[in-house]
Amino acid sequence: MNRGFAQAEYRARVARAQARMQDAGLGALLLTTEADVRYFTGFLTRFWESPSRPWFLVLPVQGDPVAVIPSIGAALMAKTWIADIRTWSAPNPADDGVSLLADTLRKVGGPVGVPSGYETHLRMPLADFERVRTAGGLVFADDGGIVAGLRAIKSEAEISKIADTCTIAGRAFARMAEIAGEGVPLSQVFRDFQRLLLEEGADWVPYIAGGAGPDGYGDVISPASDAPLRAGDVMMLDTGAVRDGYFCDYDRNFAIGRASASAQDGYARLIEATQAAFEMARPGVRACDLWRVMADIVGAGEEAGRLGHALGMQLTEGLSLTPHDKTELCAGMVLTLEPGVEIRPGTIMVHEENIAITEGVARRLSPFAGPGLPVI
Amino acid sequence: MNRGFAQAEYRARVARAQARMQDAGLGALLLTTEADVRYFTGFLTRFWESPSRPWFLVLPVQGDPVAVIPSIGAALMAKTWIADIRTWSAPNPADDGVSLLADTLRKVGGPVGVPSGYETHLRMPLADFERVRTAGGLVFADDGGIVAGLRAIKSEAEISKIADTCTIAGRAFARMAEIAGEGVPLSQVFRDFQRLLLEEGADWVPYIAGGAGPDGYGDVISPASDAPLRAGDVMMLDTGAVRDGYFCDYDRNFAIGRASASAQDGYARLIEATQAAFEMARPGVRACDLWRVMADIVGAGEEAGRLGHALGMQLTEGLSLTPHDKTELCAGMVLTLEPGVEIRPGTIMVHEENIAITEGVARRLSPFAGPGLPVI
Repeated sequence: MNRGFAQAEYRARVARAQARMQDAGLGALLLTTEADVRYFTGFLTRFWESPSRPWFLVLPVQGDPVAVIPSIGAALMAKTWIADIRTWSAPNPADDGVSLLADTLRKVGGPVGVPSGYETHLRMPLADFERVRTAGGLVFADDGGIVAGLRAIKSEAEISKIADTCTIAGRAFARMAEIAGEGVPLSQVFRDFQRLLLEEGADWVPYIAGGAGPDGYGDVISPASDAPLRAGDVMMLDTGAVRDGYFCDYDRNFAIGRASASAQDGYARLIEATQAAFEMARPGVRACDLWRVMADIVGAGEEAGRLGHALGMQLTEGLSLTPHDKTELCAGMVLTLEPGVEIRPGTIMVHEENIAITEGVARRLSPFAGPGLPVI
Repeated sequence: MNRGFAQAEYRARVARAQARMQDAGLGALLLTTEADVRYFTGFLTRFWESPSRPWFLVLPVQGDPVAVIPSIGAALMAKTWIADIRTWSAPNPADDGVSLLADTLRKVGGPVGVPSGYETHLRMPLADFERVRTAGGLVFADDGGIVAGLRAIKSEAEISKIADTCTIAGRAFARMAEIAGEGVPLSQVFRDFQRLLLEEGADWVPYIAGGAGPDGYGDVISPASDAPLRAGDVMMLDTGAVRDGYFCDYDRNFAIGRASASAQDGYARLIEATQAAFEMARPGVRACDLWRVMADIVGAGEEAGRLGHALGMQLTEGLSLTPHDKTELCAGMVLTLEPGVEIRPGTIMVHEENIAITEGVARRLSPFAGPGLPVI
């Protein structure tokens, strides 16, 4: 499993962005988030966990990107393919990169496209953004979804990284009987499952979720409780693990000790729904079509929320499998299929797999679960 | 180790915020980030890792907070003390909470304070924020640092949580000889150290950093390399682990096999600097004073960057120990002391401990390292 990408990968990303910027009449893109900056540079660090310092990448419509970053990041940025690295000593509340960024943007020229639409955010203080807008004397605009659009179509090298992370998680899920069973608190399983993911090769585990209860669970975003698992519980673990900056995002269900008929029935519908969406998923099919085929099988209404989404450098990114998302699938997209089923009021089960869209049949990235609910 | 806080803790936070809002003439605060929302509600979930959905908390100048959130979070929010929970089915790119939030703000009344200054960001799409501003018909303003100011002064219950996390990390650091030594790749140590932190009781490990090399390391934000540790290396590991939503942030240095005189000398200066700042740290002393006492001992100039910072619900938050930060310490602040020393050009060592400011002598939260560089 390689680390990073060849420089040609980044140059191709920049070229594609610049072609779209040209069409949109943009002079530059201003990028501020971890994923957007890393997409064009390869700058990979967990230091983004500290919110104290903003980081900027300026992508001109012609020429190479310019990194405008805190000096603490200069050495690491210099290891990437980026040559033009401008730094300031941060944090400096009096001028936290504002002048340096404004100066850079003025020389590059506008209009400056800033990702402003669905699922984006600006990772810098609002007040500083206003200062940059004023100081730059340039027009600022939405990037028109250029960056999200590029990131939605993964290269073979990116898909390979997501596949690697899925494989790692698959090995960890296969060891579930080592850590979970009747009498073990779910909170302990959460902790141990993160350990298994690391042992199997994850660099870190930004996301873990799950639930447990008789035949299913109530919600899937609560922290794990310290209550011990009981026979007849269905336990679900969902992980967003990362290797080399790329996520997997899928889950597994396990019955503790025994599986009731209703749990088995619910699980069978989830597997059937996932398989139906997998078989349908190919270029030209729309996100809402995948939602529909799964919703019909699990009996979900429009209020059920999404039954899958795209992923990659983020746990979730891009399209959503909802009744309203008409996005057409394209080769290179990476998706989760994530149907949920109500076992009885207040008790649900969810299942999730990861796939890549190709020109033909989709590619399984996660090792698809078998038809029967595993009992441990 | 308890989970969460009593409702009185949250009510006190709200009351303090409302007193300051009254003084500042604000009708409401609009909060969008994980830490700010959790500070007033107790809403704790790793689901924020998914950037697909915005989450809002509206804090009126009188009365209880209103949660305006995706419906997937309703069940968990209902477990907190918040009673007024308004939801929409997200993600919905056509109207991702915009109408619901604007309607809520209109009824609560403005001016609406939004954290916009140093170290903040707005966790929602910029275009949607503009829509809310327009639809609400209200005045929007900076929150004047109200939220950051409150969060800077920790309650005893908060300090106790940070102390717990520090204790957990201390137990993991004490086991370093189990996982690190000559011939082990630093990347493997990173992976195993996260495992130790989980085994010792961390809920998760959002941040890990470090470095290794002869007598020191080049930078402290790069991912770990696969090169094996060698005798004479100094290895540093720095962790931001979390238990119950509160961070520790400190590091430890270890010499591999043997410690050179220059490594020992450098380490002694780091310990001396930390101790000097610890002894000086009490109410009325300024952040820049702590910087100065450490900088003088380690021989750092103004370009050295910060030598510590505040922490709590985030890995880093609030003040910085720099020559320019004149913030006066107050009882209840929690800080890292983080001096760095240059062993020779391009090779540094850093050391870090966590303390709480009290009315008298500061309180050690991390188990302070001894005077000699440990050899493993």
